[in-house]
Amino acid sequence: MAVAQQGDLILLISKDRKVFQVVLKTGTRVQTHQGTIMHDDLIGQPLGRMVQSHLGRDFLVLPPSTHDLIREAERTTQIMFPKDIGYLLLRLNVHPGVRVIEAGTGSGGLMIALAQAVQGHGEVYSYERRADIQQVARANLARLGLERFVTLKLKDIAEGFDEADVDALFIDVRDPWSYLPQCHAALTGGGFFGAILPTINQVAHLLDDLPRYGFAAMEVEELLLRPYKAVAARLRPMDRMVAHTGYLVFARKMVGQINEEWFVPVHGRDRAAARGDMDDYW
Amino acid sequence: MAVAQQGDLILLISKDRKVFQVVLKTGTRVQTHQGTIMHDDLIGQPLGRMVQSHLGRDFLVLPPSTHDLIREAERTTQIMFPKDIGYLLLRLNVHPGVRVIEAGTGSGGLMIALAQAVQGHGEVYSYERRADIQQVARANLARLGLERFVTLKLKDIAEGFDEADVDALFIDVRDPWSYLPQCHAALTGGGFFGAILPTINQVAHLLDDLPRYGFAAMEVEELLLRPYKAVAARLRPMDRMVAHTGYLVFARKMVGQINEEWFVPVHGRDRAAARGDMDDYW
Amino acid sequence: MAVAQQGDLILLISKDRKVFQVVLKTGTRVQTHQGTIMHDDLIGQPLGRMVQSHLGRDFLVLPPSTHDLIREAERTTQIMFPKDIGYLLLRLNVHPGVRVIEAGTGSGGLMIALAQAVQGHGEVYSYERRADIQQVARANLARLGLERFVTLKLKDIAEGFDEADVDALFIDVRDPWSYLPQCHAALTGGGFFGAILPTINQVAHLLDDLPRYGFAAMEVEELLLRPYKAVAARLRPMDRMVAHTGYLVFARKMVGQINEEWFVPVHGRDRAAARGDMDDYW
Amino acid sequence: MAVAQQGDLILLISKDRKVFQVVLKTGTRVQTHQGTIMHDDLIGQPLGRMVQSHLGRDFLVLPPSTHDLIREAERTTQIMFPKDIGYLLLRLNVHPGVRVIEAGTGSGGLMIALAQAVQGHGEVYSYERRADIQQVARANLARLGLERFVTLKLKDIAEGFDEADVDALFIDVRDPWSYLPQCHAALTGGGFFGAILPTINQVAHLLDDLPRYGFAAMEVEELLLRPYKAVAARLRPMDRMVAHTGYLVFARKMVGQINEEWFVPVHGRDRAAARGDMDDYW
Repeated sequence: MAVAQQGDLILLISKDRKVFQVVLKTGTRVQTHQGTIMHDDLIGQPLGRMVQSHLGRDFLVLPPSTHDLIREAERTTQIMFPKDIGYLLLRLNVHPGVRVIEAGTGSGGLMIALAQAVQGHGEVYSYERRADIQQVARANLARLGLERFVTLKLKDIAEGFDEADVDALFIDVRDPWSYLPQCHAALTGGGFFGAILPTINQVAHLLDDLPRYGFAAMEVEELLLRPYKAVAARLRPMDRMVAHTGYLVFARKMVGQINEEWFVPVHGRDRAAARGDMDDYW
Repeated sequence: MAVAQQGDLILLISKDRKVFQVVLKTGTRVQTHQGTIMHDDLIGQPLGRMVQSHLGRDFLVLPPSTHDLIREAERTTQIMFPKDIGYLLLRLNVHPGVRVIEAGTGSGGLMIALAQAVQGHGEVYSYERRADIQQVARANLARLGLERFVTLKLKDIAEGFDEADVDALFIDVRDPWSYLPQCHAALTGGGFFGAILPTINQVAHLLDDLPRYGFAAMEVEELLLRPYKAVAARLRPMDRMVAHTGYLVFARKMVGQINEEWFVPVHGRDRAAARGDMDDYW
Repeated sequence: MAVAQQGDLILLISKDRKVFQVVLKTGTRVQTHQGTIMHDDLIGQPLGRMVQSHLGRDFLVLPPSTHDLIREAERTTQIMFPKDIGYLLLRLNVHPGVRVIEAGTGSGGLMIALAQAVQGHGEVYSYERRADIQQVARANLARLGLERFVTLKLKDIAEGFDEADVDALFIDVRDPWSYLPQCHAALTGGGFFGAILPTINQVAHLLDDLPRYGFAAMEVEELLLRPYKAVAARLRPMDRMVAHTGYLVFARKMVGQINEEWFVPVHGRDRAAARGDMDDYW
Repeated sequence: MAVAQQGDLILLISKDRKVFQVVLKTGTRVQTHQGTIMHDDLIGQPLGRMVQSHLGRDFLVLPPSTHDLIREAERTTQIMFPKDIGYLLLRLNVHPGVRVIEAGTGSGGLMIALAQAVQGHGEVYSYERRADIQQVARANLARLGLERFVTLKLKDIAEGFDEADVDALFIDVRDPWSYLPQCHAALTGGGFFGAILPTINQVAHLLDDLPRYGFAAMEVEELLLRPYKAVAARLRPMDRMVAHTGYLVFARKMVGQINEEWFVPVHGRDRAAARGDMDDYW
């Protein structure tokens, strides 16, 4: 049985679902709204158990997932949601061995996931032009022990990226179309381009410009996460849900001459909504 | 500029969107419905370009993403969808350094993603009781050069898993409730449990049993992927979409005594659909 | 140009989107959080204009739609949503000339829509066993001038409905399966049965019982309404939405012997999620 | 018990879910792929029963709902879906007593619903400029016995509508923004304007123009219908669904001077996706 160690990052969760991220350190304590817990009562003990504060209130002791880390990161800007991040990692082929650029750093939700996914077996570059935002992101990384897995860059991406031949590039700025030459220059041939945009007007603008700057195989998708009340006898979707985070736009860097046909999506061709075909689904 | 190398896995995509996975090997050729392409015309050349078959038909040459690999895997059973897989990896905290069990192997879509995510910096165990299914999965892995990253096990999980203290376990069988003692035994304290189930009756059954076998913090979610026609001037969702792949169920392994309160979801609490709150959204 | 008349029901909407329902009456005034408006300033004037309160604050003067009336009805219980009500009316074939039963009355959202749809050219019976709830519904009807279009019944439906050969029956109670003989007795042959249920467990229970009591052609559907920010230059879905109101269950009353095959859905057959078919939609 | 009468429109449904619309007439027969059924075996008999063809194959005999009529209408163009039509009727306040314009007629799905909803207690005007399309719509109406409830107009709406002071107007053309002066002229003050548009670019164009032509209180919504397999023991959404039919745009006709604030939506205000608010829904 693995036990909690000095230096481990763990979660303490109260019955009213408040979450406390704690880096374990002998001799210290965590203050909660429901009393104090000594780190020494956690170190050397198994995870997945219930502990009590000095007020006798119960807390669950759990290791965090990447999902938890993203949720609990300190925020300066709108954070990306795990549903989008998990899909992006597959789409942009992020895993050990790849080199990937993120522009901009923002609150660092995606950066945390990139750092976790690559873990130093590859390279993660995160560009941000505002020092204050970068500072919060750096602190988030440090707290999670992930700072050695990301190279933080304080730079306006209008000046271009310092890297070349990167495998994937994700851009999360208001006007990604303004930086397509820089993105194209940084990516390797066939490299993965991704963007997230809140409005459909932005999506139209980006789609219009991508082919002009040497990208093809564009796709647009969105993900909806529907949470359920996890009660066996009264199973039902939650009353409310997050209805929109952003549209995901994907494309591939092309080199040389490309026929216009390639500018349409590679996957996701649609079919005519012919009557016979639609009929069963009314 | 990175160039295609002998032994690389690449995609050739025709204008009618047929996808050919090719492992490059000097002196060989790939046969398509639109003519033949010599591997020697690809080796040493950049990716992200257009090539022509001997019939003069255009093909796009691209490196595959994990997303592409899952899509193109040979199938014996229903395959998991990338939208679900990407989210699972974050939820179950799969990344370099972890040990994870998958039961069963099936067509191997998730297995490919697990292998890519861990890449030997950790351990992936995939259990399957049918030799024929395992054989196809093994061939898929081998073709992708990922076989060294996964330990394939031919075993009925009713007999238990061979590992202990694994960080995460994902089960994709018809009756996961039948194997909860085995799952609990294999996981480390606080470890991540995940399942995917097509019917809501199965979800209710599993939710009912999880607390009896030492699991808590259950959550149920589903993901909907909505693809769009990626045409700037006529942006719209596709006419049709995959409406259901499966419900995702998550829980954590507990050790020791746990109060009943923890059996309800940690996240995702719902609010009363009070009038004032709902009003704006009609 | 139609003008507002004494006795008309109109809406006054403030800039901060508070909605005031007003029945126009000479010599009276409406008090709002932004000042007073004299009915005499509205009577004889066109609708669709802007008026000012005595404090100089702007209000929009609009006639209400059925949609508005449902939204603004006083509530004793959870109200049905317009998205579900509109669909139900088509599904249950409610229009002038039909006789329809509603059980129970509840807050009266559906009842208002039934009254509007039939307008006395047909019959609407609304059953409720709690007098206090019926009283609020009655007041809602009276305020809207719709009371003559609905027969309110104060009765436990376990005792049966007073009508026979009705064209459609909608039941909105916690346990509709408990009243299927009564529903069957009230409906005409081939008549339309509908129910709304919040949990999937209830849906399973109802589906299980419907064929035992002489119903067939069952269908289950749900409707999701996604609102958008209606701003031309920044079009996007709202951040949040109502994720669940209820599952809609439909069936038809059968008479005589029916083969078991008819108990499965008439419409909405599903197809095998065959690979070739699903591929485009990942 | 109501029985089928000479002249009634009924549905015959085979076990393989083929639907035959039949107007009953003594002495005639209906030919199906599974044998012949004599009308005389249906006339004077109850609905909701099973009959057999001369080949001994079973058919269900049911009265149609408006929903069925729309589904089974002969089509010349893309038809509107019942999910959208039901909601529109509530939104545009269509019921006995109103005067409503539809432009254009198209395949007549909405027209059938308007005719059913008003049934001569009010007026329905349906404009179409193509005679061939109007002819099919007219035949659909006649077959359903609804022709006396709709005034079909063969006219280009660019020339304006013949009516004034109508309560509601629904426009289903490619470029509704081109006809806003005509729509405004036809509607009464505060009257209901609705449109359906397949692409988001069209929605942006229309939203941009509506305020210029005297409309306010714009709203944009879309409805998703999710069908389920109606099997109690294996409840699940269908594998596939119709993902998009169209965006619904609503507005109200204004008269006189209107402040700019009213051009934003009356309902459906959004909230900041503040962290505390969103947190539970990840």
